[in-house]
Amino acid sequence: MTDGQIVTLTTDFGLADPYVGAMKGVMLSIVPHAHLVDITHQIPPQGVRQTAFVLYAVWPFFPPRTVHLVVVDPGVGTQRRPIAGQTAHGFFVGPDNGVFSYVMAQEPVSSLVELVDPQYRLAPVSQTFHGRDIFAPAAAHLAAGVPLHRLGPAVSDPVTFAPPALSVSPGQVRGEVIYIDHFGNAITSIGRLSWEGDLLSLQPAFAEDGPSGTRIPAPQAYVSAGGQELRGVRRTYGEVDAGEVLALVGSTGHLELAVREGSGADALGLQSGDAVELRW
Amino acid sequence: MTDGQIVTLTTDFGLADPYVGAMKGVMLSIVPHAHLVDITHQIPPQGVRQTAFVLYAVWPFFPPRTVHLVVVDPGVGTQRRPIAGQTAHGFFVGPDNGVFSYVMAQEPVSSLVELVDPQYRLAPVSQTFHGRDIFAPAAAHLAAGVPLHRLGPAVSDPVTFAPPALSVSPGQVRGEVIYIDHFGNAITSIGRLSWEGDLLSLQPAFAEDGPSGTRIPAPQAYVSAGGQELRGVRRTYGEVDAGEVLALVGSTGHLELAVREGSGADALGLQSGDAVELRW
Amino acid sequence: MTDGQIVTLTTDFGLADPYVGAMKGVMLSIVPHAHLVDITHQIPPQGVRQTAFVLYAVWPFFPPRTVHLVVVDPGVGTQRRPIAGQTAHGFFVGPDNGVFSYVMAQEPVSSLVELVDPQYRLAPVSQTFHGRDIFAPAAAHLAAGVPLHRLGPAVSDPVTFAPPALSVSPGQVRGEVIYIDHFGNAITSIGRLSWEGDLLSLQPAFAEDGPSGTRIPAPQAYVSAGGQELRGVRRTYGEVDAGEVLALVGSTGHLELAVREGSGADALGLQSGDAVELRW
Repeated sequence: MTDGQIVTLTTDFGLADPYVGAMKGVMLSIVPHAHLVDITHQIPPQGVRQTAFVLYAVWPFFPPRTVHLVVVDPGVGTQRRPIAGQTAHGFFVGPDNGVFSYVMAQEPVSSLVELVDPQYRLAPVSQTFHGRDIFAPAAAHLAAGVPLHRLGPAVSDPVTFAPPALSVSPGQVRGEVIYIDHFGNAITSIGRLSWEGDLLSLQPAFAEDGPSGTRIPAPQAYVSAGGQELRGVRRTYGEVDAGEVLALVGSTGHLELAVREGSGADALGLQSGDAVELRW
Repeated sequence: MTDGQIVTLTTDFGLADPYVGAMKGVMLSIVPHAHLVDITHQIPPQGVRQTAFVLYAVWPFFPPRTVHLVVVDPGVGTQRRPIAGQTAHGFFVGPDNGVFSYVMAQEPVSSLVELVDPQYRLAPVSQTFHGRDIFAPAAAHLAAGVPLHRLGPAVSDPVTFAPPALSVSPGQVRGEVIYIDHFGNAITSIGRLSWEGDLLSLQPAFAEDGPSGTRIPAPQAYVSAGGQELRGVRRTYGEVDAGEVLALVGSTGHLELAVREGSGADALGLQSGDAVELRW
Repeated sequence: MTDGQIVTLTTDFGLADPYVGAMKGVMLSIVPHAHLVDITHQIPPQGVRQTAFVLYAVWPFFPPRTVHLVVVDPGVGTQRRPIAGQTAHGFFVGPDNGVFSYVMAQEPVSSLVELVDPQYRLAPVSQTFHGRDIFAPAAAHLAAGVPLHRLGPAVSDPVTFAPPALSVSPGQVRGEVIYIDHFGNAITSIGRLSWEGDLLSLQPAFAEDGPSGTRIPAPQAYVSAGGQELRGVRRTYGEVDAGEVLALVGSTGHLELAVREGSGADALGLQSGDAVELRW
């Protein structure tokens, strides 16, 4: 493969310890010109669903053939499989625990394998750090051009978790909070939304055969969340005053609950999984 | 432009969310060999003045033609303009809200434009994430060699805020705290200072026509800040004992209030904007 | 040297301030194609021993000729020397305060110099930021292929601190906690350990002539730490229930005290320096 092949990293290792550095050293020893891009190392412990969302949010913006390495792996040392897969848009490498659920719901997976070939692992493989010993080498070899099928046998039954709640009926969409960002914006499963004048067109994000064609009159809609009801879906924070709660279409195209210059999650007492309803 | 063109990133996005990663993906899709360098993603919310200082502190150390991308943008979605500019030392790209004030006070801006050409934006442009949809593409196209004037029409009236307080009179310089770093060092507007034996030569940093030639006898000077008076301006922490408050010339060439192995801001109760006086 | 020469960075500067960015700008001005890899910037203040451990943990995983830049430098501005050294596996650059102790205990140092040649420093050198003015330029020039001996005169007496406590006797190994990671795993000086079936083979990590050939029957061993006694050394977290304390061989090959999905240091009240005993 060419110089400058991109490998992204998403982990729950934090930035204080030598673990991320060790993984980078392993990869650069295999593919010295790899372009390593940190997505985040601050996934909360056990944060498999947050990880799935983060990948979903960055996936479409990277060049094709990017390798996305994910090490959020509460099951390290158990029988969970190490896997790698390919879609039209890139490769993913990590534990078979659901972290790739949202990516796999978006794009057909052309190939999916279990990472068992010792030629593409460090030796010996530790029992506690597959990020360094299995996943980083696999990502680097993919970046170096090794074909995916060489890394191990095909997997046909990857672990995926159920998509977030989302039901569409005439005049109503019901969903749930799926991610709260560090600004306190509560991102919901209601998306993707796009503007057509004052109408919002809804394309359910994680459902392969969801209803489409739903049009929502944004200024006349009501959003219920955290026991409050908000009038209208806004385009931007600038439509309300500082400190005011609003519902808007966020940068991922999903409905968000926010406070201008504040925290929507705090103001509404929202957590991941809480119900959100949009009516019109 | 050549391979390895540098783009730096300064934002208030934190490191936990997918936002910085999405911007990097956008840039690498445009200019795959860009060298992306994180300055910081931990600017406090609304921290326009802190941002201006951070840029001022790193600006002289990067190679010419570096592109400095800044996304500290409380006004996203309002009428504030997206801009990009060029000095002899580099390019800057970001919101027209004052973040470039200190850089523009240091170096003549040879060209300054509003980022309106849709060819150099993502489509569609979201209302809430211009970092990804306007600023990152502009920075990447500049790194790829697109001339600045192609990105949009000239801007002649950029938003700048007033430079920090700094007044020089015989035997006295009055300034203010402009930045507190994570060690607790309180950096003041009194600079830039350089040593000439035991004398400090003062060149006002943010004033185009400030007085020069001021010479301050460092050991005999007094520094007043936070209700305390300190004798002497030190060269280094090593001149005092651990835990002791001192005034010294910091790494940016500005007068700082510090505690050896401690926090000067905490010890003196200092915040940005607090008055600091140097007398001799 | 070739394009893509790797320079790693390990500091206590945090990620909020412009200091790391300034160092990166200095290096890229000297060697534009350097591949800069952050190990961590979150070493605790004065954390010289933590730094030594972090370097020890990443050192073997990077390609030969990697330059490891370390700026954990409580003595900046005192008479402590700035140094750079070379082993078969790479270069190191930083203050002569012990941060390289564990690396130097692992590998012979073929060359060690004091960084005094002004040609390979910024001018002027500040009294407070040798990371930017001395260490970053030295690291960049080494990455650019400048021979180590050109940077200054040889040093024969680097500062090193005593290796961590570790005593091996029949049926017993006594060590101490040397590092606590952000998950709360308490890593001890008892290592390196490798599995041979159910036996653990011990190779003392920091002692040049330590006893070898010690074989420990892992399932029948007892580990005492923090006033508790644990039965057995485990291979992996998966052998115990969530919330349970265990002793296991961690990813660095050292004995660790941990809690599955929790903090071993908190559960056992452990700090760096606390005694740990392994008996069988």
